[in-house]
Amino acid sequence: MRVAVDAMGSDNAPDVEIEGAVQASLSSDTEVILVGDETVLNEKLAAYPKRGNMRIVHASEAITMHDKPVDAIRTKKDASLLVAMRLVKNGEADAVVSAGNTGAVMVGARTVLGPIRGVSRSAICQAIPTAKGFVVLVDLGANVDCTTRHLCEFAEMGVAYSHYALGIENPRVGLLNIGEEDAKGGSLTKTVHQHLRAAAHVNFIGNIEPKAVFAGDADVVVCDGFIGNIILKTSEAVAGLMAKLLREKFESSSASKLGAMLARKALLDLKNQIDPNEYHGAPLLGINGTVIIIHGSSKPRGVENAIYGARINFERKLNEHIRENIEELRGVEERFGTQSPAEPASEAE
Amino acid sequence: MRVAVDAMGSDNAPDVEIEGAVQASLSSDTEVILVGDETVLNEKLAAYPKRGNMRIVHASEAITMHDKPVDAIRTKKDASLLVAMRLVKNGEADAVVSAGNTGAVMVGARTVLGPIRGVSRSAICQAIPTAKGFVVLVDLGANVDCTTRHLCEFAEMGVAYSHYALGIENPRVGLLNIGEEDAKGGSLTKTVHQHLRAAAHVNFIGNIEPKAVFAGDADVVVCDGFIGNIILKTSEAVAGLMAKLLREKFESSSASKLGAMLARKALLDLKNQIDPNEYHGAPLLGINGTVIIIHGSSKPRGVENAIYGARINFERKLNEHIRENIEELRGVEERFGTQSPAEPASEAE
Repeated sequence: MRVAVDAMGSDNAPDVEIEGAVQASLSSDTEVILVGDETVLNEKLAAYPKRGNMRIVHASEAITMHDKPVDAIRTKKDASLLVAMRLVKNGEADAVVSAGNTGAVMVGARTVLGPIRGVSRSAICQAIPTAKGFVVLVDLGANVDCTTRHLCEFAEMGVAYSHYALGIENPRVGLLNIGEEDAKGGSLTKTVHQHLRAAAHVNFIGNIEPKAVFAGDADVVVCDGFIGNIILKTSEAVAGLMAKLLREKFESSSASKLGAMLARKALLDLKNQIDPNEYHGAPLLGINGTVIIIHGSSKPRGVENAIYGARINFERKLNEHIRENIEELRGVEERFGTQSPAEPASEAE
Repeated sequence: MRVAVDAMGSDNAPDVEIEGAVQASLSSDTEVILVGDETVLNEKLAAYPKRGNMRIVHASEAITMHDKPVDAIRTKKDASLLVAMRLVKNGEADAVVSAGNTGAVMVGARTVLGPIRGVSRSAICQAIPTAKGFVVLVDLGANVDCTTRHLCEFAEMGVAYSHYALGIENPRVGLLNIGEEDAKGGSLTKTVHQHLRAAAHVNFIGNIEPKAVFAGDADVVVCDGFIGNIILKTSEAVAGLMAKLLREKFESSSASKLGAMLARKALLDLKNQIDPNEYHGAPLLGINGTVIIIHGSSKPRGVENAIYGARINFERKLNEHIRENIEELRGVEERFGTQSPAEPASEAE
């Protein structure tokens, strides 16, 4: 198993990527390929004499967070991200991990690796901690304007990820909505509800509200990328705000130092429990290749865990299962008399 | 000032409504009119010998949470909610407070009181606590499928509420989005951005992400009702989940009893700080009359505070200012060559 790490993508590149890659190489037999400026990488890697199976592949350019994805993919042909993806395309690597510009990862993946047959939109998903277990939320921001077909694809891909990567037996699929009743929501949600209801092969539990999502009542929750992104960021913002307010309460109260210390400890434990660096990153689903996206502010531990995540998805043949699941959609669409439009990818700006 | 309280709306009606109304009547000179089954109300009110300016108006029916709004408004002509609204319509009351079926409140308000001239969609807003001060989020669920015009109206109405009810000098208006750059978001968001940018009378600060919303970087945040509802419920769900996880951490740790007690105290303080019962409820903006919606699970304190909220909105002539602000939109629309469609109200199911 060989994972190509875009070493120039994160806010603290390439140090974070290098340290994470070294850790992953030491704790598994995965070959880690660092892609980026070889002079810089060689020099920095020398600081880690103890490392596993690693090599460097040179790339002369890097895409920044400020680059416009489509322009960057067109003009920076030798960007580390694209070089890493071409390694997969050419059979020299099995997966890509990037903490870079998310839009560029999406456009790059679509351009270099292409979509899985039958998938009209790739989607970002992530396993998010709930009161009991994890929920796979899909899409998290790849697609802002969605059709019924897109959301049904998200469901199929999310189910494949939940089952094959996370080991959930018969994943319960919920459609994010502002009420549980079948007829709730806007026009898109109502149609998607009917389609998922008609998809006998999907364990569809109906509409689901945020409260039930965070209670862990579903294994996969489907929504358009605008809403998914807003949910993810709202949950992060509220968790951060609550932690801040609680710290202030402890510090302003006449509590003993012991009480404040214990509180800090509990908050820190909780912070680690919901820290994305502790999980396997966000796979870009629907791409002919294994691609894992992590946050630009990721720590080495986040890079390391994303490499493990890439390995799991690759070894468990996630993409083959996505292809099978997407095939199942055809029956549903025939029933509703709709076509399966191979819409052009217009997901990222 | 006379406030009609729909006494049969909440999950624990009419006890909660009665106790809240009694409290409000005792601490202000507002006349509180309890609307509902007079036999039940008279009997229960007898338990409060000490009360202020109050009276009962009989209504023989009640709309439940399970009723379909449009059907209920059509068939339950003598429902407490509709009787309360007719009191306002006929000049016998100045405002309505209801903890009942939100859809029915919206349809009922639209049917009995009608919209403010120029407003095509009424919207629900609420002042939500942030790291510094409050943000008015609008719409919170009245409208799931929105147009540019609707979102611009939400901005105008939110500004009026922020300024006149909350006393914010020149409210900063943000457009909820998945990125701060001007060109971010879906097709609707992009057009709304252009219109708000062109509205010289609006202090538009551009796109805003959830993190900045909860940091308190805007006074008014505009979004469609589906997303607003999801944000509100996600924030409640995440706050609840964090509190639960923290309690578990304290209880499972080897912390001293003192530490756990202090933590419980801090969590309780925080819970009160973000408890909607401590605030003035959610005004239904754009209606020819003052209408305040509160949660079905509200406590007496929530009813009491909503009565104060109704008084503030009425006395500060919020609706006149909304009418003025909506007038300003005409110039923006002329500039973009769009019309001001008086779309039919189809907001609730």
